[in-house]
Amino acid sequence: MSRRPNRSTERRPPRGERSAKSSADAVFIYGFHAVREALRAQNRQIIRLVATEAAAARLAPEIASRGLSPSIVSSEQIAARLGPDAVHQGVLLEARPLGPIALDDLPDDGFVLVLDQVTDPHNVGAILRSAASFGIDALVTTERHSPALTGVLAKSASGALEHVPIAVVVNLSRALAELGDMGYWRIGLDSDGEQAFGAIAFARPLALVLGAEGKGLRRLTRENCDTVARLDLPGPIKSLNVSNACAVALALASLKIAPRAAQSSE
Amino acid sequence: MSRRPNRSTERRPPRGERSAKSSADAVFIYGFHAVREALRAQNRQIIRLVATEAAAARLAPEIASRGLSPSIVSSEQIAARLGPDAVHQGVLLEARPLGPIALDDLPDDGFVLVLDQVTDPHNVGAILRSAASFGIDALVTTERHSPALTGVLAKSASGALEHVPIAVVVNLSRALAELGDMGYWRIGLDSDGEQAFGAIAFARPLALVLGAEGKGLRRLTRENCDTVARLDLPGPIKSLNVSNACAVALALASLKIAPRAAQSSE
Repeated sequence: MSRRPNRSTERRPPRGERSAKSSADAVFIYGFHAVREALRAQNRQIIRLVATEAAAARLAPEIASRGLSPSIVSSEQIAARLGPDAVHQGVLLEARPLGPIALDDLPDDGFVLVLDQVTDPHNVGAILRSAASFGIDALVTTERHSPALTGVLAKSASGALEHVPIAVVVNLSRALAELGDMGYWRIGLDSDGEQAFGAIAFARPLALVLGAEGKGLRRLTRENCDTVARLDLPGPIKSLNVSNACAVALALASLKIAPRAAQSSE
Repeated sequence: MSRRPNRSTERRPPRGERSAKSSADAVFIYGFHAVREALRAQNRQIIRLVATEAAAARLAPEIASRGLSPSIVSSEQIAARLGPDAVHQGVLLEARPLGPIALDDLPDDGFVLVLDQVTDPHNVGAILRSAASFGIDALVTTERHSPALTGVLAKSASGALEHVPIAVVVNLSRALAELGDMGYWRIGLDSDGEQAFGAIAFARPLALVLGAEGKGLRRLTRENCDTVARLDLPGPIKSLNVSNACAVALALASLKIAPRAAQSSE
């Protein structure tokens, strides 16, 4: 990728909005799957890994490929650091928060979300949280017609700003064209889509494009999607709140799409 | 069902909050599936049915079982009444809004949502909207620790208050026990659930029980569930916003659960 027409600006969440569990320049990631994904993510800078002997053994391939030397501790020592409610599964990673990225920083086999003028901060926050929950590689949004990454949005995101890199672009159609050039399959989600979303055989790299509540996808956005798909809803109301539609789409796609690096053995 | 320990109070949305498309005492339901579901729903009072000849023919069994005489009109006449953006598919039903219900009004083969102290009105509104989208039969909630069915909630519900009957109970544990007596399979959703939600073989009658953000299900609520299940999330954040979790759960359950009346031929 040599073209960089949509260089990200340096927008990022202000320090004060970051997770209460982290110091200013570090985040804690814990739980087996979360840590494994973070170790596999090329854009994640690692500070240190703390693990039980058993967890370190399960993560041996990822630890080796990163060239890490984990601190081996007891499960109780990790619990003492995270508090009694954290399901850490014997592993705690201290890492750098993710900064803003450019489109050509996206992985070749990524799964990204693209927002077309979704402006409600509750919704964008909940979308970020779902993106982090489903291991989405990045959120692509526009400089204009996007809410600030602070306040209500940060609270709704519930820590997800730490985990989901954001690419802020000037022109969404051009960004979608660029994603197409990168091989991304671009699926727009709209209640009048021509294809049933649930029937799609998803494959990476994949971009899921969401439009604003009520307005849906803009014409140029649609034209830069490979397909526009609808969620088939059996009830009397035929559209979901945009963050709920996003969560459903991510859940349905996750059932069919392979994890990024290797197949996980759940 | 002879016991009625949790008789609903007469709480219902104030008139002013109802759908802009409806007059005070009537709602418009349109689109083939929505109208068919409304005709099948025993608790839905019909005012009149307007349909094209083709749509009326497709709905012949439901029309016959209700003893209706639809007004046969052209597609354009329906569009003229609903506006150009309504995807009516040749059918428009005018019906009474749904009032509050008691637990023993629930269908024998229902699929209901139960809220355990979910208080955020954005979330409860979005949950109602998802419930209407997935054809859920009712929402069960508590008199206390529930938001008012007005304002932000009604707006977030986006018309769903018209479509989802609400049973307001005094004691949730007792209501869950009663649902159990009625044969309902009660699945609690919690991030530390013992079972993977996606692996469940869902069957009606089914009650999906959701807890408050952060707090999750209360102990007595859990004890009155048949199982507590978790959504397995592959990413670094391990919980979704409650309305998003609800939407994902409804989507996953809908993949496996049969529609209420007969199998639909989508």
